[in-house]
Amino acid sequence: MVDFLLILGCKFMKKFMNEDFLLSSQIAKTLYHNYAAQVPILDYHCHINAKEIAEDRRFENMTQIWLGGDHYKWRQMRSNGVEEAYITGEASDWEKFQMWVKTLEKAIGNPLYHWSHLELQRYFGYNGVLNEKTAEEVWNLCNEKLSQKNMSARGIIEASHVTLLCTTDDPIDDLRFHKEIAKDATITFQVLPAWRPDRAVSIEQQDFPNYISKLAQVSEIEINSFTAWKEAMRKRMTFFDEMGCKASDHGLLYIPYISAKEAEIEKIFSLRLSGKHLSKEEEMKFKTAAMLFLGEEYAKRNWVMQLHFGVTRNNNSKMFQAIGADTGFDGIYNRVPITELSAYLDNLCRKNLLPKTILYSLNPNDNAAIGTLIGCFQEAGAFGKMQQGSAWWFNDNKTGMIEQLTSLANLGLLGNFIGMLTDSRSFLSYTRHEYFRRILCNLIGGWVEQGEYPEDMEYLGKMVMDISYYNAMKYFGFLS
Amino acid sequence: MVDFLLILGCKFMKKFMNEDFLLSSQIAKTLYHNYAAQVPILDYHCHINAKEIAEDRRFENMTQIWLGGDHYKWRQMRSNGVEEAYITGEASDWEKFQMWVKTLEKAIGNPLYHWSHLELQRYFGYNGVLNEKTAEEVWNLCNEKLSQKNMSARGIIEASHVTLLCTTDDPIDDLRFHKEIAKDATITFQVLPAWRPDRAVSIEQQDFPNYISKLAQVSEIEINSFTAWKEAMRKRMTFFDEMGCKASDHGLLYIPYISAKEAEIEKIFSLRLSGKHLSKEEEMKFKTAAMLFLGEEYAKRNWVMQLHFGVTRNNNSKMFQAIGADTGFDGIYNRVPITELSAYLDNLCRKNLLPKTILYSLNPNDNAAIGTLIGCFQEAGAFGKMQQGSAWWFNDNKTGMIEQLTSLANLGLLGNFIGMLTDSRSFLSYTRHEYFRRILCNLIGGWVEQGEYPEDMEYLGKMVMDISYYNAMKYFGFLS
Amino acid sequence: MVDFLLILGCKFMKKFMNEDFLLSSQIAKTLYHNYAAQVPILDYHCHINAKEIAEDRRFENMTQIWLGGDHYKWRQMRSNGVEEAYITGEASDWEKFQMWVKTLEKAIGNPLYHWSHLELQRYFGYNGVLNEKTAEEVWNLCNEKLSQKNMSARGIIEASHVTLLCTTDDPIDDLRFHKEIAKDATITFQVLPAWRPDRAVSIEQQDFPNYISKLAQVSEIEINSFTAWKEAMRKRMTFFDEMGCKASDHGLLYIPYISAKEAEIEKIFSLRLSGKHLSKEEEMKFKTAAMLFLGEEYAKRNWVMQLHFGVTRNNNSKMFQAIGADTGFDGIYNRVPITELSAYLDNLCRKNLLPKTILYSLNPNDNAAIGTLIGCFQEAGAFGKMQQGSAWWFNDNKTGMIEQLTSLANLGLLGNFIGMLTDSRSFLSYTRHEYFRRILCNLIGGWVEQGEYPEDMEYLGKMVMDISYYNAMKYFGFLS
Repeated sequence: MVDFLLILGCKFMKKFMNEDFLLSSQIAKTLYHNYAAQVPILDYHCHINAKEIAEDRRFENMTQIWLGGDHYKWRQMRSNGVEEAYITGEASDWEKFQMWVKTLEKAIGNPLYHWSHLELQRYFGYNGVLNEKTAEEVWNLCNEKLSQKNMSARGIIEASHVTLLCTTDDPIDDLRFHKEIAKDATITFQVLPAWRPDRAVSIEQQDFPNYISKLAQVSEIEINSFTAWKEAMRKRMTFFDEMGCKASDHGLLYIPYISAKEAEIEKIFSLRLSGKHLSKEEEMKFKTAAMLFLGEEYAKRNWVMQLHFGVTRNNNSKMFQAIGADTGFDGIYNRVPITELSAYLDNLCRKNLLPKTILYSLNPNDNAAIGTLIGCFQEAGAFGKMQQGSAWWFNDNKTGMIEQLTSLANLGLLGNFIGMLTDSRSFLSYTRHEYFRRILCNLIGGWVEQGEYPEDMEYLGKMVMDISYYNAMKYFGFLS
Repeated sequence: MVDFLLILGCKFMKKFMNEDFLLSSQIAKTLYHNYAAQVPILDYHCHINAKEIAEDRRFENMTQIWLGGDHYKWRQMRSNGVEEAYITGEASDWEKFQMWVKTLEKAIGNPLYHWSHLELQRYFGYNGVLNEKTAEEVWNLCNEKLSQKNMSARGIIEASHVTLLCTTDDPIDDLRFHKEIAKDATITFQVLPAWRPDRAVSIEQQDFPNYISKLAQVSEIEINSFTAWKEAMRKRMTFFDEMGCKASDHGLLYIPYISAKEAEIEKIFSLRLSGKHLSKEEEMKFKTAAMLFLGEEYAKRNWVMQLHFGVTRNNNSKMFQAIGADTGFDGIYNRVPITELSAYLDNLCRKNLLPKTILYSLNPNDNAAIGTLIGCFQEAGAFGKMQQGSAWWFNDNKTGMIEQLTSLANLGLLGNFIGMLTDSRSFLSYTRHEYFRRILCNLIGGWVEQGEYPEDMEYLGKMVMDISYYNAMKYFGFLS
Repeated sequence: MVDFLLILGCKFMKKFMNEDFLLSSQIAKTLYHNYAAQVPILDYHCHINAKEIAEDRRFENMTQIWLGGDHYKWRQMRSNGVEEAYITGEASDWEKFQMWVKTLEKAIGNPLYHWSHLELQRYFGYNGVLNEKTAEEVWNLCNEKLSQKNMSARGIIEASHVTLLCTTDDPIDDLRFHKEIAKDATITFQVLPAWRPDRAVSIEQQDFPNYISKLAQVSEIEINSFTAWKEAMRKRMTFFDEMGCKASDHGLLYIPYISAKEAEIEKIFSLRLSGKHLSKEEEMKFKTAAMLFLGEEYAKRNWVMQLHFGVTRNNNSKMFQAIGADTGFDGIYNRVPITELSAYLDNLCRKNLLPKTILYSLNPNDNAAIGTLIGCFQEAGAFGKMQQGSAWWFNDNKTGMIEQLTSLANLGLLGNFIGMLTDSRSFLSYTRHEYFRRILCNLIGGWVEQGEYPEDMEYLGKMVMDISYYNAMKYFGFLS
């Protein structure tokens, strides 16, 4: 009986992040190990710099690969009272690493704790706990690994079983690194551009007139009207399309919908080009027109439209002036007008020019509204033409993923979900796909073990492989 | 020991939707089987057509009874890329059924999966899994059952142990089918009308002047003023009251509150009757006045006021033009102004004319705000005079019900809750009461097994029976 | 085997609220009993009346100590249809107690059920269930206990292991009871004032001009301008600071941000002092200016700024007229403009005058937005300079605490959290700290048992002690 209690004990007390990490039921374990873990990775939205792949970038130490540009980690270091010098400043890489380790110890319950340890396990073979006591050991071990041949940008991507990744690119980008990569037969995975025209749409930004002249130059079209802007954008889309682009992407506070006549848009555009500032209403009228034009173009090209919204950017103006954007000072917006988003989609749908669309809100409260809105625009032509994107950014954690998956399953068809993306600048973040797959398998496995769904492993196994890989491959058109 | 592990295994791995479906603890099982399952059903809000009961409608096949008018299912079929012909179009019933089965397979985690299988189990005696392989077998089995004598509209309602149901009726309805049913001594259950005056309140709708002339005709009152409108409405309420009506019901984007003098309302009303369009503010002033009048009248008649809000209707204008309203294109609204709702209730309360009220928001984020708002207007005269309605429509699933019940318990008195309703057009949907009761018993049972509440089965058993049936019977005044 | 099943049964079926109440795993039990339960209580925000401590108030019976002023309980009694006479009216204390007991029986799932029984266990040694059958026994037992010497205000606080508590005080308060308490060497705990200037900021209130003359009197400054108002407030802050004050506190519908020139604020202030009513915009301009001034002053004094928002006050005007404010008629606001709050914090931050700040929203939907917003203003100088307050008021229950802790952990550093406060008027409510600590330990313990975090009991034990006590002691500056 004592033995049995030990067995029972083992059942309940799991080892720290072992092979069954996040998998609580036998079915979950089978679904993950035998199915989800067996398919490769399509990372259809990330912020990897194609140049670093083309040049096969290497990293001197863990701080470079782990803390360089990673504003998720920077935020937490500031939460821990760390001086900026040790975050984005002049301190040594070893000092920064130590500060990060001290911060990580406090981060129980935070996804960074899991991501960091998954990365240490998968890429560096370190299965222990990273804390102040082990910091030096880990630093040395990892830096040694980083010096090995296979730990370059390309080596890491290959080792992660990535077959294809989509970067995030501005319309004025010449995509020369994408060309280089495409030509290089030694690269085993595909790197395709994705179209992110935020700067071309952000008419309220100080930089807008300047950006437009760059766009004019690149597109070889004189842009003195909204009509010309559209022509230039069309030309760049054609170029992106030739380069294999299958996806666009937008980042907006929210999707606006204020109708205006074409003549009024032209007037607003001219006003702004002449250096004037616009009213909020004028800004939103232009953005509505621009977004309608772009949505139609995406539909014509069979591109996927990704809409990211609900972010308040650069809340801390002192730090924005000191170190710029994307440094850890963004937050969640809580007043997205869902009726404007609906009117936008409806306008395109009415014209039979609604592209396949993925909606991502940074506010987890929007899950239900989004889940029902996409249901209003589903139609023949694709399995799950309208998608709710995977739990994004601040929601990219166990709670957020479970909530997104549960909401999606309650309101739509989980079986058609296109699954995970990293949205990351880092070469080590492919373990987030593993994290997602474990959570997905655990959720479904738990349901089945509770008798809520049939124990049909063949069917369920196919479903988790589809959600992990094949659905997205088909959705974007990489697989027919 | 091996035997024991098998026993233990059984404990953890439950058979698909067996008798203990959704019941995880021994106490939950006892509460459900010995108590909740023993009481009949009061369905105090549904969209059953009284005519179909009066005529004791029969169904030729599963598509007719399962897919006819069920926009919940239609939405998911569209999500699965099914052509409209196979949903609301000209395809054969068998083809539509097949398309539905293919869709259902992808719907793991969706309440339709459970509802469908509960209906197959309870009404058709089919305990297997419905999927592509079993589709034909199920189709034949169910169609055969549907041809049996007891599988008519009335037969199904009786077999479901329904003692009373309230339909949803327009003020201009003559309620002749309700009269017929009342006179028919062979019908073992009561069918009462409920008052739903949306068309009479929706002054912004194109149809409004036309509707008003119909109302004038039916009420035999010339309606050329708001005063006359009120008189006509009062007359119809008296008629509904005589027909046994105990409940009203409203569907609004949100409950508005913009005060205006009576003279201004008269002006707005005349303007609209003359065919003019109103400003948003004028519309809301009229609606405020109309809702205040109606609330007072409900209080005087001791009717229950049901307020359903937070729905964006007909988001897809292309499909609205093609197939009309209530076809699967509604969504969740995310900006309900809770302060206007509060002001509305307060106005009635100040006059001592606040009726018993049930608030339903389609947005699950409103749970907490509603739960606290009702607490501000509770008063002597009823157990739980103000109620938060059961998880509604898109929230009518395991997650939504647990969240609503938990929120309600945290903020109010779970013991006074009036429980479940189907809100359905279908004769098979009474299993949703079973679904609700299982979830309720599992929630309470889980708390008790965790030592959070006393294991007083007599008390708890009475509580779940009250929530399942008796509380609502008393609340609506069907039982004193 | 039968024995074993009994053992297993015990494992799953816990006794009602025993020593392992809310603790589901072995690690949770160890964390709570060996660590969290071992540290004293700092109650950094409560509504205890200092006079009652100074005079060492005693209570004649349970109704006085339990139901006097406790609007949480009053709300539920109204939900149970109890006449106001038995709540705030003329009924006898015994009758009121009985009505409360009848209400409590229905409150399964409500935190009052747990709080009440915890209080009966810890302060009165009653471990049974309070219900109609035991009401008289409990009444007699507790009243007997209340007559014992140690059951005075001070005795209860001491027995609760409170080392320090912060009251909530108006700027015009003379704090004489705080002085008395400070001088009394027999009092073993500290009682410090906290600055709550709501009346001085609420320019829209009818009482404002009257309040300003009282402020003028107390501060001995003639207040005929905003400049003078600031001078008077500064003087009172200096006095509070001398009295040991370390924390301010604000209650607002939301934190506004509408900039205005100093001259305009002066004009608004004069207008209001002359008895005029202000527009909403004028009100918000004044409040913005006042809040900016106060925030800066807090930073200069190293006080903590607490912002409580998202409450709709006095929704029921009939009851407000009958029995006044804070009687159970407040609710949750659902439209807090997070961008204005952000702009407010940013303004202070830009000037390097952002104080340590704790944000509390009454709306649980704001968790994520707040969790990300505080991340935008974290900086060196404190561990967790910006804090999200513990689940507040209507959220102060198991669900609310788990959600707040999980959100905080997902978005920030749980290890730096300053933990629980009672926010209470009652001397018996220190068991809410125990409630919080059990939930905290259970959450962390559950993660560790699932293998999600390392089983390092020394580290985890220190963390729960820090969150339970030491973090707050350091944060407010009571411990260096």
